[in-house]
Order: sequence, then structure tokens, then C-alpha cells
Amino acid sequence: MQLISIIPDFKPKNDSRLLEKAERLKPSLYHTSYPAPAACRVNGQVIPNEALGDMPLSRGDQVLLDFGRHIVGRVSLSLDQSGSAQDAPAYIRLDFAEIPGEFSEDPRQYHGWLSSSWIQREEMHIDILPARLDLPRRYAFRYIRLTVLDTSPKYQLLMRGASCAGESSADESALPVHAFPDDELKRIYEASLRTLAECTQLVLEDGPKRDRRLWLGDLRLQALTSYVSYRSIALVKRCLYLFAGSRFPDGRMSANVFTDREPAADDTFLTDYALWAAPTLMEYMAETDDAEALEDLLDPVLYQADYVLEHFLEADGIVTKEAADSAFIDWSDGLDRRTALQGILIQALEASASLCGLAGDPARAQFYRDKAETLRQTARRLLWSEELGCFLSGDQVSIHSQVFMILSGVMPMERASAALDKAMSFPGSPRMITPYMHHYYVMALLAAGLRGPAEKHLREYWGGMLKTGSDTFWESWDPSDPDGSPYGGRIVNSYCHAWSCTPAYIISRHLLSSPT
Amino acid sequence: MQLISIIPDFKPKNDSRLLEKAERLKPSLYHTSYPAPAACRVNGQVIPNEALGDMPLSRGDQVLLDFGRHIVGRVSLSLDQSGSAQDAPAYIRLDFAEIPGEFSEDPRQYHGWLSSSWIQREEMHIDILPARLDLPRRYAFRYIRLTVLDTSPKYQLLMRGASCAGESSADESALPVHAFPDDELKRIYEASLRTLAECTQLVLEDGPKRDRRLWLGDLRLQALTSYVSYRSIALVKRCLYLFAGSRFPDGRMSANVFTDREPAADDTFLTDYALWAAPTLMEYMAETDDAEALEDLLDPVLYQADYVLEHFLEADGIVTKEAADSAFIDWSDGLDRRTALQGILIQALEASASLCGLAGDPARAQFYRDKAETLRQTARRLLWSEELGCFLSGDQVSIHSQVFMILSGVMPMERASAALDKAMSFPGSPRMITPYMHHYYVMALLAAGLRGPAEKHLREYWGGMLKTGSDTFWESWDPSDPDGSPYGGRIVNSYCHAWSCTPAYIISRHLLSSPT
Repeated sequence: MQLISIIPDFKPKNDSRLLEKAERLKPSLYHTSYPAPAACRVNGQVIPNEALGDMPLSRGDQVLLDFGRHIVGRVSLSLDQSGSAQDAPAYIRLDFAEIPGEFSEDPRQYHGWLSSSWIQREEMHIDILPARLDLPRRYAFRYIRLTVLDTSPKYQLLMRGASCAGESSADESALPVHAFPDDELKRIYEASLRTLAECTQLVLEDGPKRDRRLWLGDLRLQALTSYVSYRSIALVKRCLYLFAGSRFPDGRMSANVFTDREPAADDTFLTDYALWAAPTLMEYMAETDDAEALEDLLDPVLYQADYVLEHFLEADGIVTKEAADSAFIDWSDGLDRRTALQGILIQALEASASLCGLAGDPARAQFYRDKAETLRQTARRLLWSEELGCFLSGDQVSIHSQVFMILSGVMPMERASAALDKAMSFPGSPRMITPYMHHYYVMALLAAGLRGPAEKHLREYWGGMLKTGSDTFWESWDPSDPDGSPYGGRIVNSYCHAWSCTPAYIISRHLLSSPT
Repeated sequence: MQLISIIPDFKPKNDSRLLEKAERLKPSLYHTSYPAPAACRVNGQVIPNEALGDMPLSRGDQVLLDFGRHIVGRVSLSLDQSGSAQDAPAYIRLDFAEIPGEFSEDPRQYHGWLSSSWIQREEMHIDILPARLDLPRRYAFRYIRLTVLDTSPKYQLLMRGASCAGESSADESALPVHAFPDDELKRIYEASLRTLAECTQLVLEDGPKRDRRLWLGDLRLQALTSYVSYRSIALVKRCLYLFAGSRFPDGRMSANVFTDREPAADDTFLTDYALWAAPTLMEYMAETDDAEALEDLLDPVLYQADYVLEHFLEADGIVTKEAADSAFIDWSDGLDRRTALQGILIQALEASASLCGLAGDPARAQFYRDKAETLRQTARRLLWSEELGCFLSGDQVSIHSQVFMILSGVMPMERASAALDKAMSFPGSPRMITPYMHHYYVMALLAAGLRGPAEKHLREYWGGMLKTGSDTFWESWDPSDPDGSPYGGRIVNSYCHAWSCTPAYIISRHLLSSPT
């Protein structure tokens, strides 16, 4: 995810004690070697790998390598020449793509609001052949396309080999073994773990192709899925310390933290992301019972709900429009976010109460619990439309509102199914765009006891991405608009995106344990 | 110069003894530091250097640096950022140009017969700012243009500094001091030495931008100029050993030798270039009296004229059409090269005779001298047009023919001036295109005793390049077609080219010694 926010002269407030602990928790990377694929395509024709090295390539020729799986890591090419002497540099272009569709867009025609610098393209000259090219940058890809921009009339380029060194800090040996009822569910489970592993780097990145950065809303879903798979416990802790260790000067947690240099909170604030801090820490505590983390992180985390209560609540007990406009929720166009954010605030207050309970502060726990209950009642009173049988956000009917009203215990359980149906079919209701939102939708179905529809949706939605040929899950996917992009061009979309990794969590925790 | 020749399965015959001597003669490079210019242009506006570092640059912005002189070497950039955090890579393009006109052509629109890989353009991503970019390749340039391809809406690029480390093996301390009669001649002299110095690298390169390689015809002119200036004696010797040490399997010298790896003769043969070997060695001997070089190089060098005598002479004593078609002479379109080549063969035979004399072989010396005289008589008999008062090549009247008939002593001296005038004004006579050919034209004027016209031509022709703002001399320059290129686009022309460095030689040896 990426939102643009610019606060002039913003300087994050860093807590060196917390950041030093985060630094000590930095994981080592595992490196996996991936050989060149057995076959490739040269100008569209299938060529076995052993023949590629002797195939002379001239201006305009293209070699397409499909490594058969998504890889995050470093690439080395072994290049040589044939014909007469190399009397001029070789000039090549390399394009890296997570899905083939990226190759069908011209990077020069991308004029969206994200930086085109994310497009994974390199053009380079090789003065002396033979040469081994060890590209210095990290790429996220399954496909590499080499285009010969020029050789000379005297010589041709030979591509003797390509190899990749994958990078991830996810520990494969930690994975549990499951029996799956069918191949579809198994494939969804495996793709979701691959997605998570590819994003599990020195921090839990949102996407290894784009942003490559720690986002708080993404972190929660990665952590949940990691607990049932790679169990990157220390890394989750590290990420929590990074959010607590570099914050806005007023104590709010940033939506994301830069970690390539001295850690630094971005000047982007997302109300819902900050509120996810408490559930994320609470879920971490449930896994670890880590007293040090609780002591270090409790105050920074509790502050997030405190801040919203103090600054972002109307007199009637509903979050302000300003708070809602600063919330993410989903990429849906025209979404009114107030009701969804109200639900997330209630969840944050419940988690804050639980954390205070763990920390031995029952009075404060009671304060948050009471506050949550008050806000629930307020929501039922002010946001429910008896006429429509669902919650409104402003005048808007959306799935998003129903989902977070269910997950925060506002929705009467017996009305959840009908409310979701109403919102799903309501004319003009905003569509769910991201796997992030679809995750919460499935969780809402499960919370409402609708296990069958939850599983069906998981199979259809995440399974739909696999049917395109992908082996990872995406940042954005609307089956009714498969080529869509929230960024004005799918060439900058991320096709291995952390917030879409949750099927493994949902399957492990909710579907396998009690088979239909 | 670059000609395309491809001989299937060509393998040069290498003489390891000679090549080892060449390797031992490899010079060290001098490194000269060039700071960033005092001012630059940002989107066309002049900005002082001290202000540039704080000027935020966004997508599409361009910075143009003019280093004030031609440089061959390495470039380092110091880059930083302003605004909010760097949330995406910086994506920049660097274009390097020897003259500003290169910037006005779009590299993607170059479709000539040379490799577009010679165009000095790099596009790169910088993942983390601040960064010091030490570019790994060597460039030949006076101008650097940085284009910001993208930053992001959150941040801007800052160009804190640029520095260059010039490379040359030319020894500035060896330069003599001259008094010049006027500033024009001084400036021509200095530009010619700069041109030579920039080409004086680990070999005497033809041009540091393009080819960057040792060519035999260029070597002769570089050596002559070096003798009166930097005196790169060992380097000239090294280059002669490279030509002798890696040859065609039949013993012919290649037009050029690749030296970036194990030295290897190119499979390009140019009859005139091979024939220049004897004059070049003879001129080297006149400077050095180097007995080792004479012993090692005599046979390989004599073989070049022997080969032409045996394989490329018609029964009537004129070089064959095949030999002439394999000669360079000049880039002039439609030039008939037979008569010019005949003159060069005669010069090669005279030099071969002198070398045999030095080597204590008077019989062989007499053989070459007699042969030269015979070919002179043949040329006078078969190539002279009494009706036109000049030499013909086939049916063609050209300056080129007159020049080499003068330099080989074929032309009766008293008719030289009229013959040159006739050729110069003859309808359809091919124009001289290269400074290489113009050098021989000036030498012919001097040989014919036409010192005034020689100096006038030197001032007009080489001075004309300086009037465009250049501070080096070019590969190709036809004042009547200043934007012309023998390569289908001036963006690949070389604007600092060894074979145009001879004004310093002509001025030192022929103009300063006997002032008008």
C-alpha cells in the first residue's frame, strides 16, 4: 500500500532504546539458489536451456526466462559473444516481472501517481565479453526478459546462463504439515505461504517489488499468518519495536517506517493502521507471553487508541470525518470510511483492555472495555438503518461497514448474514478491491458463523488469482476488473503482497480444524 | 574509423614473444581531478554551483554540466534528497557528450550502421539516498546532462556534486614550449595536443568515445605528433609490437587490434593501413634508433609491401581494383582509391628500402627502391592525364589522387599546384571528409613547396572546428556539411579523434621553424 502524505519539516521522534532492541532483532537471510529454467522463449519460440547458450542474439532479439516460481533476490547473468570480435559494447535491457502482464505495458507510458522508478527495468552496457553480470539490486520476479538493444554487425550476444539467489528470512523448517481436503485448498495455502515468505525479509515488507517497507496494517496480517507457519516471532517483535521506536512527534504511530537507513517513521498517518497496533501486540502476546515486549510497548500502543478518543471523536461518540478521511480500509473509490473505522476503534479498545489486563492494570482495562461498550451502543443507535437492515456510513451502504461492525461485536449476530447480503447487492455499493479487505470480509463471515460462505469466498477470490497462472497473491484484485490498478497502470501493481497472505491463517485456524 | 569486415572462423596468428614485449611496454595512466564547473544549467537556466546542491529536482528536470574542456575518464556524482522521506528509488538518466549537438539527437532514433551502444547514455536507479555514484565505465565528454526520470511525489533529488578523474598516459611534462605568431595558431596547436592526449591511453586509441581502439592508419599520425609533443615513445613501440604480434594467419597486418583482453587482430584488412606500417616504423627509428625494435619488427613490416607486390599488383604495375576497394583513404562517397593507393604503396616501398638500409641489407634496400621507382614511372605513364593536367583514378579526378601522387614523388613538382587546383574545382570531384585526409592534403601542399596555402588550409579547416566551440578535433568534418556523419547520425561521431591531432606536428615541424 502507498499513500502520499507530506508534512513540511517532519522529523520523527526516535527512541534509541527501542530502536537498539529492534536492531538486535534483525534476522539473518536465508539464500536459496535457483538455476535457469529448463526452457525459455527466444522471440516467442521455445528453446531448451542447453541450446540457448549457443544461440546468437542480435539487435531486437528477446529471451524470456520463466523461473517457474516467484523469487525475491539477486540475479546473475553469464554473457558471451559469437561471430567476429566484439568491436562495440553490448547494450541490453532487462525487465523483471512478477506476472507476464507486466511485460505488455510500456514503462514509458506509465503516468500514474506512483513513482515509475518501481518498474523493474535496467538498461546496461557491457564493454567486454565474456562477462558475468552480478546485478547489484534486489528484484521481485518470476520472469526475466532480456532484450538485445544492440550488439554490432560484427558480433552477436550469447546468453550462457542465468541464476538467481533468493532471499528471505522465513524459516521453512518451522512449517507444520497439514492434510488438505483437496488440491485447490492446498494450492491456495501454499501460495499464501509463498507470498508471506517472499515478504519476510529484514522487516516484514508489504511487497518485495514495490514499497519494500514495513506497514502497520500489513504487519498485523503477516504476523497472524506467520504464527501458524514460519513463526517469525523475533521479526514480528522487531517490527513492533520499530513502530514504537520511531513515531510522530506527538506519539502517534506512523503508517509505515523506513528502515534502509536509521529507522524513520514516514510522515503518513492512517487512523486505522495506528489502531491496529493494539490488536497486533495483543495477538503477539497470545503467542509469546513476552513480558519485555509488553513492558516496552504497552504505553506506545495504548496511546494510539487514547489519541483517537481524545482528538477524533465527535460529541455523539462517532469518529470524526477527519479521522475517517485519514483511514485506509480499502482502495475502493468513494468509500465512506466512518462506520468501518468506528468498528476498528472498538477492536483497538478491546485489545487495549486485554493488554492492560496482562500488564496487571485492571482499572485501566475496565476503562477501555467500558469505552468499547459505549461506542458499540452509540454505533447501534446512530449507524444502524432498521429500514435497510444494515449499517450505514453517512448515507452509504457498504460491505466494509458491515464487516467491521460484525468484527467489533456491534452487529447483532442474527442480522449479520442479511446485512452482508444487503450490502453486497446494494446498488452503487463500493466494491472490495484489496485482498486486505477481503481478509476482513472472510473473518466477518466466520465471526457470524457463516463458515460455508467464508470458505467459498476464500476459494473463489484467492483461487481466482491462482487461475491467472500466478503462484503468489496480489496487492489488488477485483475479479470484475482483472487488469485494474489503484495506481493508474498495473505495471506498478505488486503481485506478491503481504496483506494477501492470510488464506494460510484462515485455513489453518478456521477451516482445517473443523472440516465441513 | 570503423569498417565492418567479417571473416568466418577468423583466428589471428599471435606471436607470444612480441606480445609479451608489448605487455611490458604498457604505460601507467596519469589521473587528473576535474571539479564540477562553477555554474550549470537547470532546465536551461544558469545556476551557480553553490546553489545547485540545494535545488530540488523532480521528474523531467535536467541539469547540464559543462566541464569547460574535453575529459576522458571516470565520473562520480554525489546525490541526496529533499522533501519528505525517499519512499521510492530515484531513477535518473545520464547523457555524456563531447559537443552539445549530440544532445539534440534522440539515441532511440539512431539507425545507422554503427552500434548504438557507443552512445554514452546510462539509466539507473538509486535505491538509497544520499548516495555517491561512482560510475564504473570510462566516458569521453565535456558535457554531462542529468535527467530526473522519476523521484516520487514525496521527495526530490539533490545533485550535491559531480567530479571527474581524467585518464591519459600522455606526459604533460615532456611538452616543449613554443612562441606562436598569433592566438589562432596557438589555439589550434593546443587543441591538437589535447586531442592527442585524450587518445593516449593504454594504447594509442583512435577515439576515446568510439572504437577506443588501436588502428594502424591513426597510429602513424599519432606517433608523428607525439614525437614533437608528449614523446610517448614506449607507447608507440608497444603499438607497433601489437600490430606485429597479432596478425592475419597469412602475415598481413590487421587494420586494428583489440587489446582489452588477450591482444587479437581484427578480421578487418585495409590495404593502405597495412602499407603505413613501414613508414611508421621508419619514423619511429628516426626518433629512437631502437635496434631491438628494428630486429623484431623488420620482417613483419616488410611483409606488408611484399604481400601487396605479390598479390595486389596488375601486370601493368598498378594496384588492383580489389586492393583499392580494401583501402580506406577517406570517407568520401564514390571515391576511386586506386591512384591514391598506388602512391601509398610507393611510400611504403621507400620506407621499406630505408629500413633495410638501417638493418644493413643494402641489396634488399635497392630492391625496394628500384620497385618504387618502377611504380612511379608506371603511374606517370598510365595515370596522368595530360589533357586535364592531373592524375586520374579510373576516370575520376580527385584531390586524393593528386595528394598521394605528390607525397610519393610521382607528381612533377612544378605541376602539383595546378593539379591540386584542377582537382579541387573539378565538377563532381569527391570532397575530402576526414581530418585524416586533410592532413595528407596539407602535407602534399608543403611537399610541393606551397607553404602559404598549407598554413591557410590548416587555419581554415582545423580552426573551423574550434569556431563551433569544440576544444578537440573531430573524426569527420566537412565545413560544407557541418552536421554530416559517415555513420548515419552525428550522435555516434567521435569529436576527439586521433587522426585529427596532426596540426601540432605540422605547426612544430613545418610552420614555426621558418616563419612567413
